[in-house]
Amino acid sequence: MSSEGDQGEGADVLYYWDYLHLDGLLNAQTPKSAEHGDVIHDELIFIAVHQTSELWFKQVLFELDSVLKLMDQDPIPERDLGIVLSRLQRINVIQRLLVLQLDVLETMTPLDFLDFRSMLLPASGFQSVQFRLIENTFGLLDRDRLRIEGHRYIATLRHDHVDLVTRSERSPSFFDHVERWLSRTPFLQTRNFDFVATYRDLVKAKHDATRSSLVDNPERLAVFEAGVSKFDAVLDESVWERDVEQGTRRLSYGAFMAALFINLYRDEPILHMPYLVLTAIVDIDEAFTMWRERHALMAHRMLGRLTGTAGSGYDYLDQTAHSYAPFKDLFDVATYLLPRASLPRLPDSLANDLDFRTS
Amino acid sequence: MSSEGDQGEGADVLYYWDYLHLDGLLNAQTPKSAEHGDVIHDELIFIAVHQTSELWFKQVLFELDSVLKLMDQDPIPERDLGIVLSRLQRINVIQRLLVLQLDVLETMTPLDFLDFRSMLLPASGFQSVQFRLIENTFGLLDRDRLRIEGHRYIATLRHDHVDLVTRSERSPSFFDHVERWLSRTPFLQTRNFDFVATYRDLVKAKHDATRSSLVDNPERLAVFEAGVSKFDAVLDESVWERDVEQGTRRLSYGAFMAALFINLYRDEPILHMPYLVLTAIVDIDEAFTMWRERHALMAHRMLGRLTGTAGSGYDYLDQTAHSYAPFKDLFDVATYLLPRASLPRLPDSLANDLDFRTS
Amino acid sequence: MSSEGDQGEGADVLYYWDYLHLDGLLNAQTPKSAEHGDVIHDELIFIAVHQTSELWFKQVLFELDSVLKLMDQDPIPERDLGIVLSRLQRINVIQRLLVLQLDVLETMTPLDFLDFRSMLLPASGFQSVQFRLIENTFGLLDRDRLRIEGHRYIATLRHDHVDLVTRSERSPSFFDHVERWLSRTPFLQTRNFDFVATYRDLVKAKHDATRSSLVDNPERLAVFEAGVSKFDAVLDESVWERDVEQGTRRLSYGAFMAALFINLYRDEPILHMPYLVLTAIVDIDEAFTMWRERHALMAHRMLGRLTGTAGSGYDYLDQTAHSYAPFKDLFDVATYLLPRASLPRLPDSLANDLDFRTS
Amino acid sequence: MSSEGDQGEGADVLYYWDYLHLDGLLNAQTPKSAEHGDVIHDELIFIAVHQTSELWFKQVLFELDSVLKLMDQDPIPERDLGIVLSRLQRINVIQRLLVLQLDVLETMTPLDFLDFRSMLLPASGFQSVQFRLIENTFGLLDRDRLRIEGHRYIATLRHDHVDLVTRSERSPSFFDHVERWLSRTPFLQTRNFDFVATYRDLVKAKHDATRSSLVDNPERLAVFEAGVSKFDAVLDESVWERDVEQGTRRLSYGAFMAALFINLYRDEPILHMPYLVLTAIVDIDEAFTMWRERHALMAHRMLGRLTGTAGSGYDYLDQTAHSYAPFKDLFDVATYLLPRASLPRLPDSLANDLDFRTS
Repeated sequence: MSSEGDQGEGADVLYYWDYLHLDGLLNAQTPKSAEHGDVIHDELIFIAVHQTSELWFKQVLFELDSVLKLMDQDPIPERDLGIVLSRLQRINVIQRLLVLQLDVLETMTPLDFLDFRSMLLPASGFQSVQFRLIENTFGLLDRDRLRIEGHRYIATLRHDHVDLVTRSERSPSFFDHVERWLSRTPFLQTRNFDFVATYRDLVKAKHDATRSSLVDNPERLAVFEAGVSKFDAVLDESVWERDVEQGTRRLSYGAFMAALFINLYRDEPILHMPYLVLTAIVDIDEAFTMWRERHALMAHRMLGRLTGTAGSGYDYLDQTAHSYAPFKDLFDVATYLLPRASLPRLPDSLANDLDFRTS
Repeated sequence: MSSEGDQGEGADVLYYWDYLHLDGLLNAQTPKSAEHGDVIHDELIFIAVHQTSELWFKQVLFELDSVLKLMDQDPIPERDLGIVLSRLQRINVIQRLLVLQLDVLETMTPLDFLDFRSMLLPASGFQSVQFRLIENTFGLLDRDRLRIEGHRYIATLRHDHVDLVTRSERSPSFFDHVERWLSRTPFLQTRNFDFVATYRDLVKAKHDATRSSLVDNPERLAVFEAGVSKFDAVLDESVWERDVEQGTRRLSYGAFMAALFINLYRDEPILHMPYLVLTAIVDIDEAFTMWRERHALMAHRMLGRLTGTAGSGYDYLDQTAHSYAPFKDLFDVATYLLPRASLPRLPDSLANDLDFRTS
Repeated sequence: MSSEGDQGEGADVLYYWDYLHLDGLLNAQTPKSAEHGDVIHDELIFIAVHQTSELWFKQVLFELDSVLKLMDQDPIPERDLGIVLSRLQRINVIQRLLVLQLDVLETMTPLDFLDFRSMLLPASGFQSVQFRLIENTFGLLDRDRLRIEGHRYIATLRHDHVDLVTRSERSPSFFDHVERWLSRTPFLQTRNFDFVATYRDLVKAKHDATRSSLVDNPERLAVFEAGVSKFDAVLDESVWERDVEQGTRRLSYGAFMAALFINLYRDEPILHMPYLVLTAIVDIDEAFTMWRERHALMAHRMLGRLTGTAGSGYDYLDQTAHSYAPFKDLFDVATYLLPRASLPRLPDSLANDLDFRTS
Repeated sequence: MSSEGDQGEGADVLYYWDYLHLDGLLNAQTPKSAEHGDVIHDELIFIAVHQTSELWFKQVLFELDSVLKLMDQDPIPERDLGIVLSRLQRINVIQRLLVLQLDVLETMTPLDFLDFRSMLLPASGFQSVQFRLIENTFGLLDRDRLRIEGHRYIATLRHDHVDLVTRSERSPSFFDHVERWLSRTPFLQTRNFDFVATYRDLVKAKHDATRSSLVDNPERLAVFEAGVSKFDAVLDESVWERDVEQGTRRLSYGAFMAALFINLYRDEPILHMPYLVLTAIVDIDEAFTMWRERHALMAHRMLGRLTGTAGSGYDYLDQTAHSYAPFKDLFDVATYLLPRASLPRLPDSLANDLDFRTS
């Protein structure tokens, strides 16, 4: 990228090379194979993919930390929501690049990898400190992590990194901030509008109507009842909270109902940005899964499924892809939506409150 | 990526972190804005995009250099052609990633960039030493480069880099190796087959037939003659070489005719790999143009077209996108193709020579 | 995609196949080569790429038309801006797919194309009625179109399509709606804030400071004056309007200054959505250019630069990529930005007006 | 895409519009919502994504069928392998586009989908006849398919499609052709080289060496023995064939050992193309999994996990992603590779046979 304008001069003129510390950066590739004889050509691409990934991980952490700082205000000023959104969207753009970056690694074939992979033992991508920090900061709970041969993930880390990672487990995560932000969503209950009660009435009426229509068809009625049992949790806060205790849900009832409200009434001006923020969160959670799935496929192709002490990388990665989704409750919003046509219009006074002063 | 197997132990156990030199790598981001007060948030993404790009540039150079070494054999053993192909294709996969990486930079807005861009002056992406090395190694000639305010590109480089870049200008480039490799293509002229003569006869016969059919339509005939004048260069080697002298073509006549032969007879077993190699070269040349075009668009959006002393970045980048294509002669192969149905079958003895011993 | 729930029954059960009219859709590929003998294999991929492109073009038109309808309200209700944004972003996602789709077409080689391309004459992608409708609806002016051998683009269309396309030239375009919407942006001039006057004062003060600092350096001063002459147009409305008359700018002065205001004060809550809408417009305009550039490259590779009566496809496409950008004024916003730190805070009463009633 | 040259004239001039049957194609979007009142805006994007997907499915089938025809020769002429490769690679490029195309569908939100999804019942993507044909032609076995509520997939198809799909189950698949082609690979056993015996000896020697080194470490020895038990199948053909009978492997022992040979000796000229073909097959199998995983994620986001009679679309799709991989044996090649340095050089006479006549 070029910059216009007057150029500096003299001894302390700034060079692109120095600004980017390229002397250090471009000398930090020291293939292990060099210690065993000739450099094995493909070890360099292996290093390049991992080093660029780590630079991106640093950037993701930097953006995530800045979002946490912005969300650590009570309330979060409306004007900061635009910044939160743009940084979340940036994280997602980086994630998509990281998925594509695995295409580059796949240009290394299993046979090429075999030529040096044993030289790297026991080093492994499992040890990416920054990726653990990202997971923890994003909101992954230790209780939801897979154990590796019965050990916690920190068992593989260098001593001085254990502290760092442990601290990140204990600090408020992005999930915690989103939970708090949603819980404080105003307007769900006002003088003349009670979203939760209204929503429950609508759901019950809809289900009763279906029941009536199926009264002569006990088989289909049974299927229907099995299906709608999922609604118990939104109709009865105590059911929801029991699910939370059992670990099958994670957002509090209030936070979830707020997310539902924002989705259903997303066209109200004051909900535009919260809706876009929720969408960005789901995009990010989804992209983590995509990356894990892509990573698992690549590991399968590169390593086969032969396992030594560490278990198959493929199986591990594939399982994490399916269980490491802190915001899966937001995916389940889709389960509980009602058609817009069946929603009541908001009372005028509330709709007015959700608009700009000057509209 | 995980690795199975027995784990090292003791003091010199290898950690992922140390193998990748992450202490150095992750501490090499020193935003200039920190010297002027608070760090400006978006300077970090600016650094991340440029540092990852430079790591990829190093990798591209590494692959390119290894290809040059393999091609610096006479003849190039058939078994090495598979390796050449895989490394060229890897370069192309990296290039495609670099194009997409500009999406990440575009998450930085012009207003964000404005907050720190003057602090970086006169540093500029123009100064990317590695990109200049890639251009030179790939085959860009200094005579084809745009001047920047009348200066050569090396004028902007740090003193100790000038030598390095100048040396790369003088070393045989990938273009030179491809030229030599094509020039030595066997089979164009054998005891009972003369590709060039055969091809010329076919072209002339085809043009004569069209002329006859247009004899009563002088207007369309004139248009036709204007169009086919492009064929003079393949019909007459001296015309081609004059174009080369004038700089409008660059491959020698012999090399170009070999490329044409490989394209037309690509289904012969011995030409499978040469054809895939030629395709990979065109893919790479095309991807350089895509990257320059994408870069120009981003510069336009980020900087507008206000120009200081350096000329508009957009205009410069956009012009390079259109003139920096060392292998544009290979794009022009399409101009001179003939329908397969009109090609003569190769004599049996030659077809036999182009096949495997054991077929 | 699956859907849950009770299944229909009986005679009018809906099949996926019938819903999508696949009988018609999958029988609409009639290769021209079949009329000349055997079907040429690659004609099918040629048809597939063009047919899917046309389905996407229809979708783009549909989204664009719906946006025009929403914007054809005065004023545009705030709640509709979210819908406008989501549809513009969808158009951009489709555009990015269309760029990638050209990778599929590039799996057809020039030699394969040569086998049937003359059978298609004079049919040509130039004749895509829907693409012309998209261009016109987006805002491309006939005066800015390249002539093809001196003829207007409609000269190549089927008779009954000429009317359709001509009508789209005469209807208000998306550009017209954006121009009107921007022109009506409130808050640029309030009782105690005059954005244009404030902005001009800042610019002048900044330029004067630079002039003073260069007073002893006439050479650099001259360069500076040449550079800042671009600001004449924003400092003096009559200069801007003269540029508009001469065709070098297109947005009115008022609309442009509103776009500048929205960019500079994008963090104010009421400007969040307008800012995102402006960003989406630039994304779309940029993606059109990307598609044209990618298309031009592919044409070069596929056809070479041999030209008959119609001129080289490459040259034509490449020129349109650089001149067909209705919103290029929005790219130039970057030229006129000022660092946020130099901007005055908005008066409290105005900032208050730009926020939600309930904040 | 433009075409040069002389233009047709008169009554039967060919128009782009007619060539592509755009009258039919662009009138084949009949939203179901129109029958229930106003068209719901997002039903159109739903139709567009599915129709373009079906056009691509047709193209994939067309390429696959042509590959089957080429492979249905005994032996497959070397010159046809280049064509097979290019068509397999084209299928992969289309698959990658299909994955990205789901980004477009995701611009439709769950709430938008809810507005019309019940109108489409019981139609469902499960009913895509062409996708079933692709799966069967590629080599998916009915025994490996998930049952949907106990029913076979053909239960959901329109009557006249059942036959078509059933026929495709019974015809030789791409898998069958690859199996046969691999089984016939020459050179695995020649007068002075026996690949299988050589390979087995190497593996046994390597394992014995490890056993010796672990003789004092019974714990690690046990882990090692558990790991290498995977090699029983390559060391003993009867073990392999028992796995095949039990359905955990599918390629015959001979075919698999040929694949292993091609991977290990891929640099021999005659194995260049077979190696690239094997790589393309793995790419395609992998891309099917990517598409299914991406599809599952989208279904989760769009539908939540509420299930009616049909089971959750997400769970179904996600399970197919993990079990529908006809060529998973080729992924497992990585498990059985040996480092190149440990492989014996081929005898000169064999290496000679694997080269071109004229080398």
